[in-house]
Amino acid sequence: MDDIEPFHVMDLLAQARSLEAAGRSVVHMEVGEPDFSTPAPIVDAGIEALREGLTHYTPAVGLPELREAIAEYYHDRYGLEVSAKRIIVTPGASGALQLVMGVLLNSGDRVLMADPGYPCNRHFVRQYEGYARTLAVDATTGYQLTPDLLASAWEEQCVGAMVATPANPTGTLIPADDLREMAGYSKSRGGVLIVDEIYHGLVYDTDVTSALPLGDNVFIVNSFSKYFGMTGWRLGWLVAPEYYVRDIDKLAQNIFLAAATPSQHAALAAFENGTRQILERRREAFQRRRDFLLPALRNLGFDIPVTPQGAFYLYANCERFTHDSFEFCNRLLQKAGVAITPGVDFGHHRARDHVRFAYTTSLENLELGVTRLARFLKSID
Amino acid sequence: MDDIEPFHVMDLLAQARSLEAAGRSVVHMEVGEPDFSTPAPIVDAGIEALREGLTHYTPAVGLPELREAIAEYYHDRYGLEVSAKRIIVTPGASGALQLVMGVLLNSGDRVLMADPGYPCNRHFVRQYEGYARTLAVDATTGYQLTPDLLASAWEEQCVGAMVATPANPTGTLIPADDLREMAGYSKSRGGVLIVDEIYHGLVYDTDVTSALPLGDNVFIVNSFSKYFGMTGWRLGWLVAPEYYVRDIDKLAQNIFLAAATPSQHAALAAFENGTRQILERRREAFQRRRDFLLPALRNLGFDIPVTPQGAFYLYANCERFTHDSFEFCNRLLQKAGVAITPGVDFGHHRARDHVRFAYTTSLENLELGVTRLARFLKSID
Repeated sequence: MDDIEPFHVMDLLAQARSLEAAGRSVVHMEVGEPDFSTPAPIVDAGIEALREGLTHYTPAVGLPELREAIAEYYHDRYGLEVSAKRIIVTPGASGALQLVMGVLLNSGDRVLMADPGYPCNRHFVRQYEGYARTLAVDATTGYQLTPDLLASAWEEQCVGAMVATPANPTGTLIPADDLREMAGYSKSRGGVLIVDEIYHGLVYDTDVTSALPLGDNVFIVNSFSKYFGMTGWRLGWLVAPEYYVRDIDKLAQNIFLAAATPSQHAALAAFENGTRQILERRREAFQRRRDFLLPALRNLGFDIPVTPQGAFYLYANCERFTHDSFEFCNRLLQKAGVAITPGVDFGHHRARDHVRFAYTTSLENLELGVTRLARFLKSID
Repeated sequence: MDDIEPFHVMDLLAQARSLEAAGRSVVHMEVGEPDFSTPAPIVDAGIEALREGLTHYTPAVGLPELREAIAEYYHDRYGLEVSAKRIIVTPGASGALQLVMGVLLNSGDRVLMADPGYPCNRHFVRQYEGYARTLAVDATTGYQLTPDLLASAWEEQCVGAMVATPANPTGTLIPADDLREMAGYSKSRGGVLIVDEIYHGLVYDTDVTSALPLGDNVFIVNSFSKYFGMTGWRLGWLVAPEYYVRDIDKLAQNIFLAAATPSQHAALAAFENGTRQILERRREAFQRRRDFLLPALRNLGFDIPVTPQGAFYLYANCERFTHDSFEFCNRLLQKAGVAITPGVDFGHHRARDHVRFAYTTSLENLELGVTRLARFLKSID
């Protein structure tokens, strides 16, 4: 347990709740969850499944028809063919990451990943007796691993690398060529590439394609949480190389039995046209929020050198104001009623010079947050 | 992964499905899941929650009102007081067991448990770098650990023992005095006692009380799956000593974020009077099935020396017919269309002399199964 770091933002959240209970207003820009509820067609499908009494266990790897629907999604959205046999439905991306690390790692194995990054990724490696070797990244590589970084850091004990595109907390993408090269390099070293695509639906200004066809050593992790707006349903999926599927099935049977059945039936509606239209409008709303918040923060003096092209996060250098971003977040909350996440929740590399803003609240709230932030920064100037 | 054993019954299930696809009838007495659907009041509460758009994440340790409702359940059902702070809502009992083993174990730590037993328990220990030391038990101790067994097997590396009452696969209970002594003995050795009470609602002929008050070294694992009929919702809970709650919260945030939100709202209806009446009628139905199946199997020559007082399983010695119960199960399925579970799925101790019957199907089906079984046994006599 000593190797598992707490989320520091949880302390801030507890403070925010006390403030709100005492009547203070708080603008929440710390939450890694869309403010939108689940789209109505998905909710309706969930209700229908419950009405039909579909409340028994599904197979450990998921409802066959949902695995098929996900395979079709790869065809419709990316023009890619994948067998439904390789798709494993999981309780959130968390479940998918447990399965990947569980079948991949032996004691002492290493997995390379970027710092800053989503902290649970390190912990999933640790959970299965591995060691997450984090590589410091900065704006020069879009806060992402590159083929060169991978090659220079790869050691004998490495069994793979994990990347996320778009990434949390930076919202940046990995160029397609880099992804291909990293998959190839990992393979040349007998390793795998784990690609987190959970924010794939939320990409702006550009198109992305899945890393799925980049080799038989590539694992794809995805989720119904962020783009499909199904956070509380706890549903994700994994596309695994066929070689691993049998072991994954065995591990899933043992560690969680299966994802929730009503969630799986509801998710069948996630790929329908009506749902896709709702999701597209939401994506556009996120883009408008980013297009407001990014220049506003830059104007205030936050350094955001890379324009994030996806997810709903801005990772901002705040060294003009502080070298202790955790303390900065605390004061900002207490004095100005704005909640954001300190860099320390995403790693160690220059974490105290950075904060993360999430644009998971309305434009009006973001405007209010920026106004409060401006006043706060003036007061400490 | 080599330390994780597959469920052999899965091969049987696959065979059963092929047989059924080919038009053969199969009596399913292998399924560890109630045949009843979720009670209507729980389903209705789930539908209502979805209508209200309650689809966002809950806190990692669960909805506060559900934790309170579970605390009240301990009061109403057992007359026990417990703070809701000690109750952690989890994705199934699986999630609870991950949390217990995660906060408890360091590399090489040992946990004592009975063989036969639920195999995932061993695997959860292994998952967190521990070692499950299984102790062979038989009818003389009701297939359960005893204080003497615990004391004779406890080693320096032991950090605790895990028991289940009623147990899977045997359906037997642990006498209250033995439970108390085992909790006390574990404490005297600086260890914990983990008590699986997931079949607690399904007890016949007698009353049981929870091990909850037996000491501040006792973890209680429970579930909405078996008694409350919510298998597919993936919802369970853990009552932890207060000392561990902070670490458990941290681990839950990292490994699964939270249990499914619609499931948690639905479960609020699990403790209502109307639901309890439905569940009580179902418990009586299970008891009638046991009261039919137990003498019927004994009449056929299966040796079931201890009358199981709970769960929905009969663990039968089949050495009069075979010393290879896996092969026996295969033949029984192929020749007679009856699916049961081989002993090897529950451990190693005399596993090939035992099979498990689950009475999770209607009395009519059980009667049909017994008729087929009788014919099959005659044919191999």
